[in-house]
Amino acid sequence: MTGSGTGTGTPVLVTYDWVPDLVRGSVRDMRIRWALEELGRPYRVETVPLGPKSAEHLAMQPFGQVPILKTGDHSLFESGAILLHLASEGTALMPEGQAGAVTQWLFAALNSVEPSSFAWVLMRAAKRAPEIFGAAPPENQIDGAAKRMRARLDGVARALQGRDWLTGQFSAADIAMADVLRVAGADGGLGEHPGLAVYVARATARPAFRRAMDAHMAHWDAADAARVPA
Amino acid sequence: MTGSGTGTGTPVLVTYDWVPDLVRGSVRDMRIRWALEELGRPYRVETVPLGPKSAEHLAMQPFGQVPILKTGDHSLFESGAILLHLASEGTALMPEGQAGAVTQWLFAALNSVEPSSFAWVLMRAAKRAPEIFGAAPPENQIDGAAKRMRARLDGVARALQGRDWLTGQFSAADIAMADVLRVAGADGGLGEHPGLAVYVARATARPAFRRAMDAHMAHWDAADAARVPA
Repeated sequence: MTGSGTGTGTPVLVTYDWVPDLVRGSVRDMRIRWALEELGRPYRVETVPLGPKSAEHLAMQPFGQVPILKTGDHSLFESGAILLHLASEGTALMPEGQAGAVTQWLFAALNSVEPSSFAWVLMRAAKRAPEIFGAAPPENQIDGAAKRMRARLDGVARALQGRDWLTGQFSAADIAMADVLRVAGADGGLGEHPGLAVYVARATARPAFRRAMDAHMAHWDAADAARVPA
Repeated sequence: MTGSGTGTGTPVLVTYDWVPDLVRGSVRDMRIRWALEELGRPYRVETVPLGPKSAEHLAMQPFGQVPILKTGDHSLFESGAILLHLASEGTALMPEGQAGAVTQWLFAALNSVEPSSFAWVLMRAAKRAPEIFGAAPPENQIDGAAKRMRARLDGVARALQGRDWLTGQFSAADIAMADVLRVAGADGGLGEHPGLAVYVARATARPAFRRAMDAHMAHWDAADAARVPA
């Protein structure tokens, strides 16, 4: 049954069969790989076509997106819901007594920060590669997007003042927030927020992040290799 | 302590002291009022200034937004986190065995649908009232936003096929999704999705929604009255 989010056995992470270089490193299966590595949980990877979307994919994920996490005969989508599900199984990603705060910051990362930071990243990408994105947005639109993103980054910086992690201890909320911020940061989006750049560096220095990123990039390398005629 | 999300006593819903007519009915405290009415839980209302943001407000909510739910000495922000917190207290908003599915659809409403529908609603508002929003967006941008919204609405329509509610029974996920969709629908955004319009009508016909909306609008009426010099 789709969506119950429980079940037993080795979890299966569903991601795309291939993506262009431009988005490698930022496909949202990274968050789930990272969480699974933090938990020390082995997992398998299955793929769905990037496009056109298959009926099987749309049956699992009505928006045709990834990631999806399958465990036994259960299947769960939305990276935030998967992170919360994995976190709720123990205290490694949800410290004792912190369920409310972790949930709050997980939603904040995906709802209050990512929409503005992702919009800015997309506009910057469209400026660099108008041949892929259709048209380069006018400068005043990019400036407007940057301003909206900065307002949200100010809020995160305020919340992180004097602490290493959002809720005090490392949690699933930091996986979501650092994953959102590092994508903006890779394009220079944290230039006015050095504290956030330090936070991202702290998060991405974790061995579990490095293992997850290595596996994420190896997946695309293998996809490239499979495309080369024998 | 901010963010632990537990506590005892009558919950206090924090919303703005006043908002312009344009956004009355769609301020996100509505979702929380609705959930509290579904649960039959009495609550009190406190306010923060719409602007400029007070230090007290920013200490509770680093982005200067509402709603915030305070219970005892605990305080929680992000409407998704508050809904999940309220839902997890019983089965009225999270049917037995449906925690994964409810969480998944709650994130889907706020993460996969609202960013695109809200962007469209904002552009339409800017077109109608450029004197408030700075400038009317060009038609091709509104069309692009409509197309992105429609793709997500297609996904929700697919998931609702053959069922009244997202996870089978009414849940917190329906509060979030119907609240997102009704705002787009009020501006004609569900014209190509009659099934979603029926879903919104079903959700907003619930007595708890009606009570919540009455209280929401009465709050702004009282705010207007307080502004009139005696």
